[in-house]
Amino acid sequence: MANNTIAAPKGFLAAGVQCGIKKSGKADLGLLVCPAGATAAAVFTTNKIVSAAVAVSKQHIKSPKIRAVVVNSGNANTCTGQKGIRNAITMCNKTASLVARRLSLGPRVTGDESRNILVASTGIIGRQLPIKKITAGISKAAAKLSASASAGLDFAKAIMTTDTKPKQAVRRLEISGAAVTIAGAVKGAGMIAPNMATTLLFITTDVAISNYLLGRALKRAVGNSLNKLTVDGHQSTNDTAIILASGLADNRPIVSQCPRYRRFAKTLGQLCDDLAKQMALDAEGATRMFKVVVKGAATKADAARASRAIADYPLVKCAVNGGDPNWGRIICAVGSAGVRLNPNKLSCKLGPITVFNNGAPRKFDVKKASKVVSQTEHTITVNLGMGKASDFCYGCDLSKDYVTINADYQT
Amino acid sequence: MANNTIAAPKGFLAAGVQCGIKKSGKADLGLLVCPAGATAAAVFTTNKIVSAAVAVSKQHIKSPKIRAVVVNSGNANTCTGQKGIRNAITMCNKTASLVARRLSLGPRVTGDESRNILVASTGIIGRQLPIKKITAGISKAAAKLSASASAGLDFAKAIMTTDTKPKQAVRRLEISGAAVTIAGAVKGAGMIAPNMATTLLFITTDVAISNYLLGRALKRAVGNSLNKLTVDGHQSTNDTAIILASGLADNRPIVSQCPRYRRFAKTLGQLCDDLAKQMALDAEGATRMFKVVVKGAATKADAARASRAIADYPLVKCAVNGGDPNWGRIICAVGSAGVRLNPNKLSCKLGPITVFNNGAPRKFDVKKASKVVSQTEHTITVNLGMGKASDFCYGCDLSKDYVTINADYQT
Repeated sequence: MANNTIAAPKGFLAAGVQCGIKKSGKADLGLLVCPAGATAAAVFTTNKIVSAAVAVSKQHIKSPKIRAVVVNSGNANTCTGQKGIRNAITMCNKTASLVARRLSLGPRVTGDESRNILVASTGIIGRQLPIKKITAGISKAAAKLSASASAGLDFAKAIMTTDTKPKQAVRRLEISGAAVTIAGAVKGAGMIAPNMATTLLFITTDVAISNYLLGRALKRAVGNSLNKLTVDGHQSTNDTAIILASGLADNRPIVSQCPRYRRFAKTLGQLCDDLAKQMALDAEGATRMFKVVVKGAATKADAARASRAIADYPLVKCAVNGGDPNWGRIICAVGSAGVRLNPNKLSCKLGPITVFNNGAPRKFDVKKASKVVSQTEHTITVNLGMGKASDFCYGCDLSKDYVTINADYQT
Repeated sequence: MANNTIAAPKGFLAAGVQCGIKKSGKADLGLLVCPAGATAAAVFTTNKIVSAAVAVSKQHIKSPKIRAVVVNSGNANTCTGQKGIRNAITMCNKTASLVARRLSLGPRVTGDESRNILVASTGIIGRQLPIKKITAGISKAAAKLSASASAGLDFAKAIMTTDTKPKQAVRRLEISGAAVTIAGAVKGAGMIAPNMATTLLFITTDVAISNYLLGRALKRAVGNSLNKLTVDGHQSTNDTAIILASGLADNRPIVSQCPRYRRFAKTLGQLCDDLAKQMALDAEGATRMFKVVVKGAATKADAARASRAIADYPLVKCAVNGGDPNWGRIICAVGSAGVRLNPNKLSCKLGPITVFNNGAPRKFDVKKASKVVSQTEHTITVNLGMGKASDFCYGCDLSKDYVTINADYQT
């Protein structure tokens, strides 16, 4: 069986274990190690309240090489004050000592090995981490580290919260004659039991690339995928995307924005797009997803704002849930999005079907349109009739299950 | 029985009838007449796509005196192009001719009587009005016009969409020795079958007041009530608030911002607050409401933005639905609201219970807090720890019924 997990690229070991944070007894601690030290880049939440894990990783990402990433699910380590920071550092220390000492993997990368460890948390807000359970879990995970597909899958499972299935993707390409692999694991955009609003994305690759270009490629890929996905319109306190590049693919190192860089960046973009769609379809209670394309905008910012307003509008989300070609709600959302538009040139399509054209309704086959909206994925296209800019956004439907998951719980 | 309807103030006649727009056979046409001609003011939606009714009323409100308001529910007359505009004007023409000719009520107020008629519509977007049914309905309503409580109630029922009950309020006060009445009827902020996102508010009063001050008082009252209420975060294409003042109360006319003006404005504000709360509790699927108070903000705009972000946040709304004192979601919403805050001074209270203080969680009685959140109405207070500005917002819970109402329907 091909290894299509985060452990697939050369130079990575992964593990996922159960350490007792989650009452459900499901896996809740993941470890990802690059024994030789990886070139790394990360994108963090823009929420003004951030997890202690984000605060610590923002410092550690400055290290020239990253040795490992340690992740827990079931507790966000957010709103936990100084003790939360100390706990996040303890997770890094424990991981560093295990990686450096017990595994005896490669030379020390820099002076303070714990600064080469990134940490991420996802779960309930406002509770202190059960740090003893977690450090025991890190030992357990370190003992199981492996480059096997099953270890990669264990990692993908350990970062899950309300996700109904692990979300992974892999892409393979050739760069200067060398086989390069990029792999990713992501946890869903939905929330869990119940304070979670956290997206964690981990990507590994064996490409040899400069730190700067890796960061540039990640930012762009996330900008066009995860950042285009809106499930309930808010960015969490824990959102983190990390990419680690081991450089062991033996490609001619990518050090400029040459065609090799562009090919790598494009493939990374496709991987992230794949993962974003998996997230949309596995969002809490979601049964289907949709893409909103806004064209004819005065500026790209207007197009982005309008597409997001449509994808976030509860009435549009409910209509998609009901398979209802309810274009009036789309027009209403656009009108209140605060963007420049020409009411007499405004148009809307559901899939290939024009339902509203130049400010006037068009007769259309409602049965056919219902079929379009009832697909696992369909595209809503809106033309603002103002200019030439365009942008897009991914959304998912709003179902009764979303409410069930997020209401029927007691803190 | 006291008349606590829109027909209560001196000088108004009302009617509500069924004319066949709604398939359900429920009342769908309302008429409100001030035979002597009323001083009037209105506030309209800021959505860039507006109902033909809004477009026409925006012109007609410029008339010095308004004779009548004609309203239909079941069809929004939005996205209906030039034909929609012609239909809205036809509604005004028909009402004008009936009021002037058949009822023989008072002198002609200005040259073109139809310009003294306001029109409002609420309902599905993108369909042409069944104009013959509507003009027949206007005749039927004109024949039933009365100042009785039952006629006022009929009007309140005729503007309903997914509302489960008519929403009315009345306030009485004395101004310079004269008894003044203010009454209002409003339709819910929820949506219906299924494109409705329309709020219509009609207020009558017999106070004698200048046009300018009436408008000023209305704007302020709506700003502190209806505009503070968020059900799903979007303003509709049809939102309209109209106040008509017959001037028949025999008070010394209010022509400056004197204490009499302030008393009238304050009472009008209380009436609108009452109606806004009725709307919140009757929003689609809503089982309870809450008030979000944001204090300690750097500016009032920050306070308004933060309070609205919390009230709009689906996870907060779901938590309220579940009676769950889930303060982590509140903090998450505040953090991503894009307002200035001091993480180390951030605090949060549920009712009287402090759950988060100066950036750290506080132990609290979860059972007691659940009780607070499970009330028909409770207050969430957040202190941003930045300054002295404050503002508030009303919200309601998000229930499975909201999804049912808005998804289980085929256009």
